Amino acid sequence: MKQDDVRFDWERKQRTGIPEVVFGEGKTANQLLGIASAAIERKLSLLMTRVSREKAEYLAEHLESDYLDWHESSRTLFVSVSPVSELSQVKASIAIVAAGTSDHALVAEVQRCLQFFGLASTPYMDVGVAGLWRLTSLVDQFDKYSVFIAVAGMEGALFSVLSGLVKGPVIALPSSVGYGVSEGGHTALNCALASCSPGLAVVNIDNGFGAAALASKMLSI
Amino acid sequence: MKQDDVRFDWERKQRTGIPEVVFGEGKTANQLLGIASAAIERKLSLLMTRVSREKAEYLAEHLESDYLDWHESSRTLFVSVSPVSELSQVKASIAIVAAGTSDHALVAEVQRCLQFFGLASTPYMDVGVAGLWRLTSLVDQFDKYSVFIAVAGMEGALFSVLSGLVKGPVIALPSSVGYGVSEGGHTALNCALASCSPGLAVVNIDNGFGAAALASKMLSI
Amino acid sequence: MKQDDVRFDWERKQRTGIPEVVFGEGKTANQLLGIASAAIERKLSLLMTRVSREKAEYLAEHLESDYLDWHESSRTLFVSVSPVSELSQVKASIAIVAAGTSDHALVAEVQRCLQFFGLASTPYMDVGVAGLWRLTSLVDQFDKYSVFIAVAGMEGALFSVLSGLVKGPVIALPSSVGYGVSEGGHTALNCALASCSPGLAVVNIDNGFGAAALASKMLSI
Amino acid sequence: MKQDDVRFDWERKQRTGIPEVVFGEGKTANQLLGIASAAIERKLSLLMTRVSREKAEYLAEHLESDYLDWHESSRTLFVSVSPVSELSQVKASIAIVAAGTSDHALVAEVQRCLQFFGLASTPYMDVGVAGLWRLTSLVDQFDKYSVFIAVAGMEGALFSVLSGLVKGPVIALPSSVGYGVSEGGHTALNCALASCSPGLAVVNIDNGFGAAALASKMLSI
Amino acid sequence: MKQDDVRFDWERKQRTGIPEVVFGEGKTANQLLGIASAAIERKLSLLMTRVSREKAEYLAEHLESDYLDWHESSRTLFVSVSPVSELSQVKASIAIVAAGTSDHALVAEVQRCLQFFGLASTPYMDVGVAGLWRLTSLVDQFDKYSVFIAVAGMEGALFSVLSGLVKGPVIALPSSVGYGVSEGGHTALNCALASCSPGLAVVNIDNGFGAAALASKMLSI
Amino acid sequence: MKQDDVRFDWERKQRTGIPEVVFGEGKTANQLLGIASAAIERKLSLLMTRVSREKAEYLAEHLESDYLDWHESSRTLFVSVSPVSELSQVKASIAIVAAGTSDHALVAEVQRCLQFFGLASTPYMDVGVAGLWRLTSLVDQFDKYSVFIAVAGMEGALFSVLSGLVKGPVIALPSSVGYGVSEGGHTALNCALASCSPGLAVVNIDNGFGAAALASKMLSI
Amino acid sequence: MKQDDVRFDWERKQRTGIPEVVFGEGKTANQLLGIASAAIERKLSLLMTRVSREKAEYLAEHLESDYLDWHESSRTLFVSVSPVSELSQVKASIAIVAAGTSDHALVAEVQRCLQFFGLASTPYMDVGVAGLWRLTSLVDQFDKYSVFIAVAGMEGALFSVLSGLVKGPVIALPSSVGYGVSEGGHTALNCALASCSPGLAVVNIDNGFGAAALASKMLSI
Amino acid sequence: MKQDDVRFDWERKQRTGIPEVVFGEGKTANQLLGIASAAIERKLSLLMTRVSREKAEYLAEHLESDYLDWHESSRTLFVSVSPVSELSQVKASIAIVAAGTSDHALVAEVQRCLQFFGLASTPYMDVGVAGLWRLTSLVDQFDKYSVFIAVAGMEGALFSVLSGLVKGPVIALPSSVGYGVSEGGHTALNCALASCSPGLAVVNIDNGFGAAALASKMLSI
Repeated sequence: MKQDDVRFDWERKQRTGIPEVVFGEGKTANQLLGIASAAIERKLSLLMTRVSREKAEYLAEHLESDYLDWHESSRTLFVSVSPVSELSQVKASIAIVAAGTSDHALVAEVQRCLQFFGLASTPYMDVGVAGLWRLTSLVDQFDKYSVFIAVAGMEGALFSVLSGLVKGPVIALPSSVGYGVSEGGHTALNCALASCSPGLAVVNIDNGFGAAALASKMLSI
Repeated sequence: MKQDDVRFDWERKQRTGIPEVVFGEGKTANQLLGIASAAIERKLSLLMTRVSREKAEYLAEHLESDYLDWHESSRTLFVSVSPVSELSQVKASIAIVAAGTSDHALVAEVQRCLQFFGLASTPYMDVGVAGLWRLTSLVDQFDKYSVFIAVAGMEGALFSVLSGLVKGPVIALPSSVGYGVSEGGHTALNCALASCSPGLAVVNIDNGFGAAALASKMLSI
Repeated sequence: MKQDDVRFDWERKQRTGIPEVVFGEGKTANQLLGIASAAIERKLSLLMTRVSREKAEYLAEHLESDYLDWHESSRTLFVSVSPVSELSQVKASIAIVAAGTSDHALVAEVQRCLQFFGLASTPYMDVGVAGLWRLTSLVDQFDKYSVFIAVAGMEGALFSVLSGLVKGPVIALPSSVGYGVSEGGHTALNCALASCSPGLAVVNIDNGFGAAALASKMLSI
Repeated sequence: MKQDDVRFDWERKQRTGIPEVVFGEGKTANQLLGIASAAIERKLSLLMTRVSREKAEYLAEHLESDYLDWHESSRTLFVSVSPVSELSQVKASIAIVAAGTSDHALVAEVQRCLQFFGLASTPYMDVGVAGLWRLTSLVDQFDKYSVFIAVAGMEGALFSVLSGLVKGPVIALPSSVGYGVSEGGHTALNCALASCSPGLAVVNIDNGFGAAALASKMLSI
Repeated sequence: MKQDDVRFDWERKQRTGIPEVVFGEGKTANQLLGIASAAIERKLSLLMTRVSREKAEYLAEHLESDYLDWHESSRTLFVSVSPVSELSQVKASIAIVAAGTSDHALVAEVQRCLQFFGLASTPYMDVGVAGLWRLTSLVDQFDKYSVFIAVAGMEGALFSVLSGLVKGPVIALPSSVGYGVSEGGHTALNCALASCSPGLAVVNIDNGFGAAALASKMLSI
Repeated sequence: MKQDDVRFDWERKQRTGIPEVVFGEGKTANQLLGIASAAIERKLSLLMTRVSREKAEYLAEHLESDYLDWHESSRTLFVSVSPVSELSQVKASIAIVAAGTSDHALVAEVQRCLQFFGLASTPYMDVGVAGLWRLTSLVDQFDKYSVFIAVAGMEGALFSVLSGLVKGPVIALPSSVGYGVSEGGHTALNCALASCSPGLAVVNIDNGFGAAALASKMLSI
Repeated sequence: MKQDDVRFDWERKQRTGIPEVVFGEGKTANQLLGIASAAIERKLSLLMTRVSREKAEYLAEHLESDYLDWHESSRTLFVSVSPVSELSQVKASIAIVAAGTSDHALVAEVQRCLQFFGLASTPYMDVGVAGLWRLTSLVDQFDKYSVFIAVAGMEGALFSVLSGLVKGPVIALPSSVGYGVSEGGHTALNCALASCSPGLAVVNIDNGFGAAALASKMLSI
Repeated sequence: MKQDDVRFDWERKQRTGIPEVVFGEGKTANQLLGIASAAIERKLSLLMTRVSREKAEYLAEHLESDYLDWHESSRTLFVSVSPVSELSQVKASIAIVAAGTSDHALVAEVQRCLQFFGLASTPYMDVGVAGLWRLTSLVDQFDKYSVFIAVAGMEGALFSVLSGLVKGPVIALPSSVGYGVSEGGHTALNCALASCSPGLAVVNIDNGFGAAALASKMLSI
């Protein structure tokens, strides 16, 4: 058995509208290299998430491509067949609303995934409900967005409050930031699921890619 | 303090597009009566979920209304200001896909809530993945739907499989049906959240109303 | 061994400021009768919580007292040595803020316990965060209270939001109302503990007496 | 998107009496620097918790301030506009009672936060209930305090015992110290919540800042 | 297969010193009858625990024995070959110390099991730590006991406190009494396991028979 | 939507060797009737599990069939097209080894399912490891079986011990019998999964049908 | 006490058909050396799992053997008395079906263990259900296998789907790959246990050796 | 506040028979030094558990004592006032029975603690139940011991089996060794608590000191 042989699902996008995205965390640098090489050979663009600096550098060293683009805080890597700037940026009406400064990396992952799908988005940072006036002062601006992605760790009260203030569906993205009972993000996740604000769509803890993919699917209805 | 005085949020629909819906389980028959009376007085229609036969009969006895409509298996009650048949039924492209016979009551709750929102839907029952051919034979029919609501208890594998076969977003509605490790629906819920099929939107266990509200919000983007 | 012999802690109030209160749920009617008789004999007033109608009627039948006062929705029983109306009602600045109609019974338990301690309180019902305007419209009124007791089940977002809007300490009282991930009140409890609003004091799920006792201790600082 | 742009809630103190405090754990040194710079520019003092030595040194290097004060065992950082010694020290009646030597760091965090709020406190260390005589010998001294903060890991029996011995409210601060069933502090937390001693106020595991903020709110009633 | 045929372990006592005891909860009245009949036939005494009134009456009706003795609050049944009063009562030095009135039934189970093993015991009721003076006033009396069985639900702080006050080993018997985080007895159990008082021996929640058997084994060292 | 319309997977047996079996617990009597009628119409035999006496009687009343066979303790129902006695009974080498009397009902479910698949089995009851001699005395008899199904609740130590004594694979079937930490069967389940005896095959708690189906699949390799 | 003295169970294979295999993770290099030396002395082959590179190198340095064979990704070590190539490779009909690239290491462990038992196997990689066409296109090839080992992390839907498509028994081997609710592999494990596909045999998370041993036992029926 | 000031409970031994033992894990080297110095000054011996090599070396460097004795695998440190060899070794009848090689460190901690209490013990290693013959062959030898300490991780079946074979009480000491469902030792712990073998005394996971203290208390009855 050759461990580094991996099969990649090139047909995914055609069938579901969302391309297969490579989750980098459980894979060796060599496995990622194999997938990236195959993509370049087929002239297909590829998104890799949770790619550490070490793995990104390993790929940059071994791949002959001008269009590798690794982004630090989001830990995402574009293996593109054309310059990133040429990715068509549909002016989409997506707002990303984040509770705290600690959620910046997750917000960045969401933005980069949306960018890869060709969708622009606007982030609103540090609008946790403990200081409600920061959030309510933005409500009028929120009228122009069709879809919201809310990012929060700790107790995740932002999900309910935001969903009760806007017309568009809110995607709740719980972050694993927290300690004590909120360690690992389970309290924020349960808070989103148990919300009495109707119309919340919940994704797994830290699943920035999933939130972006869901937003993309909603916008293409 | 008068225990049965309740304040109802009449402005909800105007702000978020989804009317406030009354969750009947934790409330006394008398509390439900108070809310229903106020709705009729204001000539507003109202949806109540998880209303037992006893509570429904209590309301039928005490309310002067020709348009109370209680539905047994879904345990939903319409307190309408006009005949139910007059509810505008927008021909919506929503498919409800259920894994097993035990999920019928939950499917019924979803359908009734969608009906209250003015949306028609088509149920596909007993298409659990243990007999995959039942599901794959339907894939062509699924092309015509924009939004899917998948209902499953036990291990909830249906969520991942369906989401990998269709273009529209899939709303995963875990049911509490199950025993042993799947008792209470937590395995089905976690299965939906952990799915590697991108684009799944998850709601709380047995939250039929939430799934319907989310579908409605998606369709109004 | 005589099972129904129970020792009661008559000195508690003198030492801690809070009298021992009898938790009725795990005790037989006969055990409650023994405690109540001893109290009457000593000319001491007594509060019993979670007393069912059956047990209350058993005590009413067997006790020679003019001042038994059982309250239905709160399931509390006063075994008083004087008429309840003569309980000195200190005009205290306590607001009880509840998220939903299903929390009425718990609010009633809190009020009755405060009443037994000689403290009046004002309830604000049905002000869950899903309809934020119901809460924010009350903020000015809230200025006059020193202590807040917030009652919420489901996701308990009310705790964080309220605590971020008022100067006084907020006591979070999670209720066991809920289903799916919020079944039993654990999500509301964790939401309170993980809140990023500083100054929240949390008590056990459904512990109305504990919330009242804590408010009483705060006010006597 | 510029990741290091953070918005800080300067109005918090005015509204709730407690200033926003920066939780350092999930933030980069650069994010902390941004917040600290803005504070100095506005001539406002700032408290940062869970700041590692590395981050503290990074700030000391990049900030032009004479009044940075990092404290090792509590991992707190004061970004002050005046010397720490000039912080008004109200002689408050707060006792901090800790079960074991392993809780020293958490006690230090509580003391530093109280100091930042301008409140002095007295620590009583190593008075766990396994040697009850250490605790009971202090009861007379405890008469002079208005508020108690009890710190305990393992089984947290100290919370119940202390609360049954004193008149003032006890704030239970569970520590994550422990192994086996007490790993992470959940047993101590549950012990505090389930206590039959009335009047306990519970905060999240390791939430020293929260305990201090709650004490401060209680004292300003 | 004949469902009601059961094999009973008559040799157990000879090998381990403790006879096999029949747990009545999961068995049908008919299964219990089969076991009891076989015991009487062999002229062996038998102890059954968790026997409901209905099952006890069924056995009384169908068994020809003068020495059936069912005890209500402990739900134990002696199937004896001689009058209970003739059971040799070794004057053992066992104290049973219980936190609250709600634990009476569990204390009764312990006492009856000890009685069946031929051991007398002394119960101390209602000595929970919330009123520490009730416990400390008994410490001198405790000198005369070799083994302690402590019974507590809720937060189980009694286990640690008692174990720190006496010389003999303390058997911690957590009771399932409680609500919220202490529902089902898990908090009391964990409190016992995590105790920093050395020398605690813990048994399963509500396992009165197990505590009695362990005490018996300790005394026969 | 007609709630009682159910689709049944008639092709299952052909594809996987195991027919679809109807889980009766979450279904109404009417839904079961619909499935049974369709089976009789197609001249196919059907197995239903977890069928209460009430549902079985409802079917007996409404179905025209001479070959309905409901078995009380196992709660299974055969809807057969021929007398049960005509079911070919392959003399299979399956031993069912159960720890306690409380597991009889589960053993009965396993036997009935095997019988429906045409496989005979031999039960060994009450051989829990607390009296090891009951088990070790059987080891020689065990040589003649190819597959073992071990049934145990409480701590499930039987799984490891049996698996270490025999050559054939052992299927661990945890039962939900138990209280305290073993309530619901999770301790027995985890004990089976964590066993250091190699070659254990684990199925869900109380899943008698699953154990039988797995044994059948193993024997047809 | 000499810590490094270990007793090894040389008789295991004779009794159960599966040799004792050494789990390397909790043991020191010196303990492993002791076991390996004893094996070589007795001219017996030995399999060690979860052996890190450091420990393997320590053994290679200290053992006089030509037949040490450490395999990197599977972290297994053969301590053989003859060249590995001489291990009889029975051409067994075992398919290993893995959901994702991250499961390669676990697949390798399974293959190495099977190889040590003298059994060949065929791996099918990256056939997760999110792209169902990858799996269904293989169904015809699957006809030739008697036993399947399915490896999956995340939500583990592969277990149910595969089991519904093939005749042979499927051994579900959950992997600990995952994050959020699937962290540690518990969701995949529960998904396997709760599956409605009959005939699934489940082993512990990451227990590659256990899956191989079970397959070996099944094939020797 | 001086962080390194610690109060030590010198009276503990006199009251409960067991000296206070210092748990080294959560304390700094400097805190340990403070306690050790005070002990030497008072001419009292002291036992410290979970002391890393680094901390032990720090103490050796800074303490003027000839009688420091650190033991590697048990991570225990004796701070004695006389040579260890002079510790009176009562020839006690304690057997330590361990399931696997990975439990050696825990066995060593138990032995060292017993040695500090002046009690000798005999270890029996690697007698897990998967190879039952290793255990049953020892039963005759076990007759001579009064107390047993059983050490096991994984599924902990050893506890039940041993307790059913011997007359003396068995102290179950669950170890944290394990992976998947047995990670952290909770399965072994629950297995001990749920055991149907009467007379088991359970202590916390990895609590070697607690098991030794309990054995010591039992022997001094």
